[in-house]
Amino acid sequence: MQTLASLLSAHRSGTRSVTDTVRAVYARIAVQDDPAMFITLRAEADVLAEAAALDAKGDTALPLYGIPVAVKDNIDVAGLPTTCACPAFAYTPEHDATAVARLKAAGALIIGKTNLDQFATGLVGVRSPYGIPRNAFNPVLVPGGSSSGSASAVSAGIVPVSLGTDTAGSGRVPAMLQNIVGLKPSLGLVPNTGLVPACKTLDCISIFALTVDDAMAVLDVIAGFDPQDAWSRDLPVGPLAAAPPSFVLGVLPEAQREFFGDAHAAAAYEAALARFKAIGATLKEIDFSPFAETARLLYEGPWVAERWIVAEELLTTTPEALHPVTRAITEPGGKASAADAFRATYRLKELRAKVAPVLAAIDGLLLPTAPSAYTVEEVLADPVRLNSRNGTYTNFVNLMDLCGIAVPAAIAPTGVPYGVTLLAPAGKDAQMAALGRAFVGAGDLPLGASHAPAPPLAPLPVAAEPGRLDILVFGAHLSGMALNGDLKAMGGRFVRTATTAPTYRMKRLPGAVARPGVVRVKADGAVLEGEIWSLPFEGVGKLLATIPAPLGLGQVELADGTRVAGFLAEAAALEGAEDITAHGGFRAFMAAAQTA
Amino acid sequence: MQTLASLLSAHRSGTRSVTDTVRAVYARIAVQDDPAMFITLRAEADVLAEAAALDAKGDTALPLYGIPVAVKDNIDVAGLPTTCACPAFAYTPEHDATAVARLKAAGALIIGKTNLDQFATGLVGVRSPYGIPRNAFNPVLVPGGSSSGSASAVSAGIVPVSLGTDTAGSGRVPAMLQNIVGLKPSLGLVPNTGLVPACKTLDCISIFALTVDDAMAVLDVIAGFDPQDAWSRDLPVGPLAAAPPSFVLGVLPEAQREFFGDAHAAAAYEAALARFKAIGATLKEIDFSPFAETARLLYEGPWVAERWIVAEELLTTTPEALHPVTRAITEPGGKASAADAFRATYRLKELRAKVAPVLAAIDGLLLPTAPSAYTVEEVLADPVRLNSRNGTYTNFVNLMDLCGIAVPAAIAPTGVPYGVTLLAPAGKDAQMAALGRAFVGAGDLPLGASHAPAPPLAPLPVAAEPGRLDILVFGAHLSGMALNGDLKAMGGRFVRTATTAPTYRMKRLPGAVARPGVVRVKADGAVLEGEIWSLPFEGVGKLLATIPAPLGLGQVELADGTRVAGFLAEAAALEGAEDITAHGGFRAFMAAAQTA
Repeated sequence: MQTLASLLSAHRSGTRSVTDTVRAVYARIAVQDDPAMFITLRAEADVLAEAAALDAKGDTALPLYGIPVAVKDNIDVAGLPTTCACPAFAYTPEHDATAVARLKAAGALIIGKTNLDQFATGLVGVRSPYGIPRNAFNPVLVPGGSSSGSASAVSAGIVPVSLGTDTAGSGRVPAMLQNIVGLKPSLGLVPNTGLVPACKTLDCISIFALTVDDAMAVLDVIAGFDPQDAWSRDLPVGPLAAAPPSFVLGVLPEAQREFFGDAHAAAAYEAALARFKAIGATLKEIDFSPFAETARLLYEGPWVAERWIVAEELLTTTPEALHPVTRAITEPGGKASAADAFRATYRLKELRAKVAPVLAAIDGLLLPTAPSAYTVEEVLADPVRLNSRNGTYTNFVNLMDLCGIAVPAAIAPTGVPYGVTLLAPAGKDAQMAALGRAFVGAGDLPLGASHAPAPPLAPLPVAAEPGRLDILVFGAHLSGMALNGDLKAMGGRFVRTATTAPTYRMKRLPGAVARPGVVRVKADGAVLEGEIWSLPFEGVGKLLATIPAPLGLGQVELADGTRVAGFLAEAAALEGAEDITAHGGFRAFMAAAQTA
Repeated sequence: MQTLASLLSAHRSGTRSVTDTVRAVYARIAVQDDPAMFITLRAEADVLAEAAALDAKGDTALPLYGIPVAVKDNIDVAGLPTTCACPAFAYTPEHDATAVARLKAAGALIIGKTNLDQFATGLVGVRSPYGIPRNAFNPVLVPGGSSSGSASAVSAGIVPVSLGTDTAGSGRVPAMLQNIVGLKPSLGLVPNTGLVPACKTLDCISIFALTVDDAMAVLDVIAGFDPQDAWSRDLPVGPLAAAPPSFVLGVLPEAQREFFGDAHAAAAYEAALARFKAIGATLKEIDFSPFAETARLLYEGPWVAERWIVAEELLTTTPEALHPVTRAITEPGGKASAADAFRATYRLKELRAKVAPVLAAIDGLLLPTAPSAYTVEEVLADPVRLNSRNGTYTNFVNLMDLCGIAVPAAIAPTGVPYGVTLLAPAGKDAQMAALGRAFVGAGDLPLGASHAPAPPLAPLPVAAEPGRLDILVFGAHLSGMALNGDLKAMGGRFVRTATTAPTYRMKRLPGAVARPGVVRVKADGAVLEGEIWSLPFEGVGKLLATIPAPLGLGQVELADGTRVAGFLAEAAALEGAEDITAHGGFRAFMAAAQTA
């Protein structure tokens, strides 16, 4: 099974032509033989013509050079009908959605438009007059929705990446059910121009991929402000980096874990917590109740009116044109009052204010992607209740303006895949992806529906986080000491202990409270121990504003010869001061002082 | 007529006791003899008791030490009824609104609760069963609303400052009509805890004052995040500073100026533009149509449902308890649908996206506060249409999340006061105030209803802005030198040249490119010249990230004995380096090197 990275590498090195790739895509479609996956599949000849043009031009620097992509059928691709899985609604757009245009400009090839729960309403994938796409990982299970066909296409290995959309979980639940990655960007990060809304205030285009790195490669291409889209935001999402060595994840307390009796799901979540602990996570139980209340607002509250607006014309003229379940869910939206809408807005505002400090105190929230997995038969028999269950851990996310990434976590002995989702406030897309890829890298699951193991994580440059600076501290700013809280309040994060080159001396500054001053010396220097803390640039300014003479921030040479910003003192001011170099560091000096 | 500043100064210097001030307030109330100004006026004896306590304690450092304040009667003051000018709605709160509690803690004395257009619905001040507060400046005119009594109390010189509220212009229109200042803070800057909503998504507490400085002194006390209020925002509003020497204001093109035939209003706006040009403004015509469309959304759209929610119980049980005009406006709010509400939200989002680049290209928007001024008689005869006209230039402001300040601009020969309002995106409150005070300072209008001229502008301390740090530079970062552009790119602004205490020496760092290193010495020090640049905290981090060893940022002593952050070098690294102290600074050294 080819990842985006492996295909791109093959195209660039010339070991495989784009034409070969397209032929393989159509061959794989034939083998998979799922008539419900695509609503519109482009003619192979048309895509081959585009592939030939790419091969001829050989512009291999394109970031998605020759990558085949499937697009959910509520996103416009010029010249192909947009149906939203409702034939009576269909139209053929003249223009590409902005995200699609960016994919094409980056060298991607659009293969076709994929099936979905009608009007992107549903988390199951069985609500479409175009049939039920087969779950490529486990055909007994529903494919997940609403982005059913896009998830199946990736899991089946037909395309390495696809576009879905995500309002209530449509970009995450199908990812879990088909053992792939589902990246739900921050609202407004990817432009919605050319997307048929589900809930216009809550929609975003999402990405399915076999690996986190592939999903981020697509995000990098399609993200960015679009003046055409009033919902677009200029969010500074940095590049994908390696996960930090330690981080804090908010997790469900035992009493709030709801798997509807699915013991395999419970075990999968427990195992995911253990795996995250093994790669550096500190787990912190959070109260899930405000999130759960927000999730209920989505379908029990007035946001259904947004879905009603989309289908208003059909609902008022030919309601029978809708799927019966979609119709039953959407129709009440026309009856909600503006007062209901405002009251729900008020409550949402309160709930968001309540969780803001909770989210600020953790690096991410780690939840099951969905509480369980249901079969097609089960969902057809109980279409609304089981669908609602699927949204337990996803419905609140866009209402709370979070970003998230769903990653595979476990495959039960029953053959059912389970997943977890990492969530954080908008703008932290890259950070969540970094945690997600570290988690996947520490596991051993196959890629999608294949038996191929996931490729090892590509080494990422250990670039300093943009906007932050490492600062070596020697004295009262050390962990547990008097000024360490100030450092944290300035946004400081512990990086590691570190020792200097053997060219420094430490003296005790004059004054009642012991503080050290470190100076570089020409001779008789020693190694000193300190701690490196990472500070946002802004925190560096705040820190410098609090530093009294004769201290300052300079460049300190470390034992390995590299340099880092850190505390130094003016030499002239320390003449005659008590020399405490022999302790090797301030912590040892203080310990000795206390026992003395 | 006493301003807050003059009263505070008198209290602090002891030339006037707080008790004297309170006696004067009640004497003034008796002279003004306006039975419709206050809905609840506290007993003089009660306020005198508080004044005596303040005088006895003498805690003159309190920022509002002994300042009498009136509070609009939709804001809770513990123990006084909150009526919203609707007797049937009244209740007596146990707790102060957060803003009121902050006023009290700052030493202010609450005199009473002022009349308003019922439920803060209206811009006229005639919609109250408690009567029509007299316009203190020109009794023929309506007082303006909805914060009618609070504006009258300030204009009449009863209190120097008062609290109003502002949803559609209630904190600005009355300011114009009574020749005072109306500061409408950014939404969420002043907590709404303890405020009866008008439109909960759009309300804010506002400030009336005789001068811009007084209004900002109150804002400084009542602004700040409140975890009790879900709508509260942590906005970094700096202190009031002097206006910049040049700035760009967006203004109405001729064709879009609407004064409903009021030639005096048109002339007043034209004169205000000229006065702003004279103090440094570049005027840039903007297209007002998206703002005008937004203004119409407020009363023609679903936001009326928010007003309906507030009065729901009365409207459904005893609608006759409402003022007939208020009832007629509010009742339709119960009929709006959630779909209407969402559609209006969509349109608002588009309009905001449309004006965002317009606002980003100017320092502020300069508009008439209201297009004209109507008499009580005119408004009673045509209560809704003339009220709507009053909102022409105010209704859109909170929907677009702007902050603003209304300042007096002109008094027509007819005795009608006209004003202008400065508007900018949320968080720019202090910048708009700076422009407003410069405009007022360049004019010659009296204070409020008095014939007293406005006091000259107090010189503002050139205090370091919060979030910025002054940095003393000695070398390549000096104006015009190689790295000065980097400093500017980091947000650096030149402050002044400065000289050090005579305790430093400057050496030339080793290397092909001349760079100086400054070190403090025990003996044989000299005075060195450098430049102080102000950098945002974030810029300090960026700067430190670029500084090579042996340079760093420490604390440098200046010639006047104060200290400032600045460039210092490690002494050990400079042993044996060329001493260039004799030049007195790097600029002189470089000049000498070039002529040599």
